[in-house]
Amino acid sequence: MGVIGLGNVGGGTLEILAQNRVQIERKLGCPLVVTAVSSRSVAKRRLPAAVQPALVSPDWRDVVASPEVDIVAELVGGTTTAREIVESAIRHGKSVVTANKELAAIAGLDLWLQARKAGVSLAMEASVCGGIPIHAVLREGIAGDRILAFFGILNGTSNYILTEIERCGAGFEQVLQEAQDLGYAEADPSADVDGYDARSKLALLASLAFGAHFEAQAIHTEGIRRISPEDFRYAAQLGCTIRLLCAARQDELGFSLSVRPSLIPKSAILASVLGAYNAVWVRGEFGADTFYYGRGAGSLPTGVAVVSDLMRVARALKEGHAGSMPPFGHVELDVAPAVPVGQQKHAWFLRFRVDDRPGIIAALASILAECNISVDAILQLPSENKRNLPFVITVEPASGEAVQAALCRMIPLPFLVEPPLALPIEAGL
Amino acid sequence: MGVIGLGNVGGGTLEILAQNRVQIERKLGCPLVVTAVSSRSVAKRRLPAAVQPALVSPDWRDVVASPEVDIVAELVGGTTTAREIVESAIRHGKSVVTANKELAAIAGLDLWLQARKAGVSLAMEASVCGGIPIHAVLREGIAGDRILAFFGILNGTSNYILTEIERCGAGFEQVLQEAQDLGYAEADPSADVDGYDARSKLALLASLAFGAHFEAQAIHTEGIRRISPEDFRYAAQLGCTIRLLCAARQDELGFSLSVRPSLIPKSAILASVLGAYNAVWVRGEFGADTFYYGRGAGSLPTGVAVVSDLMRVARALKEGHAGSMPPFGHVELDVAPAVPVGQQKHAWFLRFRVDDRPGIIAALASILAECNISVDAILQLPSENKRNLPFVITVEPASGEAVQAALCRMIPLPFLVEPPLALPIEAGL
Repeated sequence: MGVIGLGNVGGGTLEILAQNRVQIERKLGCPLVVTAVSSRSVAKRRLPAAVQPALVSPDWRDVVASPEVDIVAELVGGTTTAREIVESAIRHGKSVVTANKELAAIAGLDLWLQARKAGVSLAMEASVCGGIPIHAVLREGIAGDRILAFFGILNGTSNYILTEIERCGAGFEQVLQEAQDLGYAEADPSADVDGYDARSKLALLASLAFGAHFEAQAIHTEGIRRISPEDFRYAAQLGCTIRLLCAARQDELGFSLSVRPSLIPKSAILASVLGAYNAVWVRGEFGADTFYYGRGAGSLPTGVAVVSDLMRVARALKEGHAGSMPPFGHVELDVAPAVPVGQQKHAWFLRFRVDDRPGIIAALASILAECNISVDAILQLPSENKRNLPFVITVEPASGEAVQAALCRMIPLPFLVEPPLALPIEAGL
Repeated sequence: MGVIGLGNVGGGTLEILAQNRVQIERKLGCPLVVTAVSSRSVAKRRLPAAVQPALVSPDWRDVVASPEVDIVAELVGGTTTAREIVESAIRHGKSVVTANKELAAIAGLDLWLQARKAGVSLAMEASVCGGIPIHAVLREGIAGDRILAFFGILNGTSNYILTEIERCGAGFEQVLQEAQDLGYAEADPSADVDGYDARSKLALLASLAFGAHFEAQAIHTEGIRRISPEDFRYAAQLGCTIRLLCAARQDELGFSLSVRPSLIPKSAILASVLGAYNAVWVRGEFGADTFYYGRGAGSLPTGVAVVSDLMRVARALKEGHAGSMPPFGHVELDVAPAVPVGQQKHAWFLRFRVDDRPGIIAALASILAECNISVDAILQLPSENKRNLPFVITVEPASGEAVQAALCRMIPLPFLVEPPLALPIEAGL
């Protein structure tokens, strides 16, 4: 086999292949041998001592074309070169293991059709929640169930930031800066904190769970930039915490997918997911609730996913059925009509910041009433800053559309310091 | 395929096969058709409308011998007839799916060798933690990792009883009676509350995790009959709760397996496993910690595991590699020397019940000192019953052997109302 890309994940993969060689052979019945590696800066990299591939090249084409290579691990990331690598490998009759969520989300189905036609495997366990074998779970472990819904914390950086805001009461910008200083967040944090990374993973998991293809770009996505320490304090009054929740539901209308900060009960196991960990809560029609938790990323946890896939593909090659392992666990993927998440009904947490004066509650409450939204509770914690006073109104289950309509009518109100923040309350977890 | 046994799990399996027919076919690429069923009291059973097997028989031999049957689901339980069924099926060249933990624990390796020789599959996902796909996780999902340890809550009944004792402060006998009245516990509760059910499951999971065979009978096993509401109150003082913990560790000396009530930190995710749920915490050398949670038993959750196995075996049959799917995830199982758990060092929670008088602490502390065990803390909550006064001594890490030696020396002390209770403190979760 060959490894292309010797960054974080590629390095972890080679390290595990070297250090865990004996265990792997005991499980597989034969060794898993790296015969070629490639990286643009290969000369600068030190390979683990136990990995001595015949071929080390700065050009990935050498790995893909090598007659010694039957499986290619694409670990370069991005979508342009990565796609070239995967397609070229398939054309050369090589099976492919990838850790690339963006590529899998935008082109996974197409690549699988190419792989199937070529009689090779395409495996992508490492593309979502590196350390959690959630692909294996959905594809095989609970394949007999019908998934009704799942809820995931799929981005470790944003979960780290949220749980730090909660823990130490600092604001988003300060915690982000600290996370960047510690190397937990990128210099450009947008993919993490604006939810784009999570939505690619959500699209992939939804394909596995529901057997349908979802365009990541079409998924309703909100990030965490507006979440403040006050929001956690008000959420705590409701027995809740706040997480960037990836939600996917199947009902009689179709599929609803969303990525947005949401209130979840502190008693929910998902609420105990702290720091850079990931987790997925799955609700099956027959098997009821199951929960999966682990590292979301990192060189070695993601490397475990890559190596596990390599073993699975190697076994399939040995047994002659490489071309019959659908990576999404379904023979075909439907093109699924997505239900606008705005039609879903939730209880909502509406947080306002106001320049305090008489009549504020009356003004907001009458807009809510006119939009047919019932107020559940009004929460106000002690605050000294009357010019920028946060408080919260919770409302009874209402559609996102109705809530948005009410918020639009509120925005012009002169006492609002900033637009209201609306977070759904996921009470059923 | 054929289903033998139409009890709880058999009924759930048939129900899922009928109601989830469309999804199963979308995943598998072909239908999963039940062509024969058998149960001793088959005439009394109503089959789901969508299941209309050609053959319904009170004699399992008819199913095993049927030329229409390529996979046999053994769902009768027990070990005598069940073993006959599995061996007969294998001899007839049929693949086998079983939900039978006792059989898998005592004969799984032998049955797999027979199956491999006959070129058929033996699958047993449903044998441990019905609703949690922990076999698939260990066998495939994180196959690339090297498991250092795992900790499981593997018996739902005892977890229900413990969490009820904690929740409502009632004693063991009363909660057991309530559990029996509700149907959560058997009339003879021994397998559940004395830890025997959990140890069979622990032996199986250890085989999957470590690639070695373990005799269930040789596993150090303690039940929960002595756990009282006071123990939870004292544990809470230490920030802990109590669970019947199945622990398996691999270190340079070998493997240590145990089933015993243990203190675990309330902050550990395992501590949030309430009621009849099961969970497994896995520690990998490379992938770090992962966690799996779901229903431990029940007709439909266990049925999902059976159906998922049936799909996997059906796929293997279609692709012609049924005989190459080792159920324990390793080509061979080692015969592993077990390290006596008494050699393991833990902090300990020692609970005493005494007829109060001066000198008790001095007497206990000097025995501990003579056994070279350091006292960490002495806890005593207010109590009015001076004739049966519970209190707790926690000690710094000491081997189980040392602690047992100290306890043996304490037993003759005249002020002890009952022998001391020693629970390990699993701080690292």
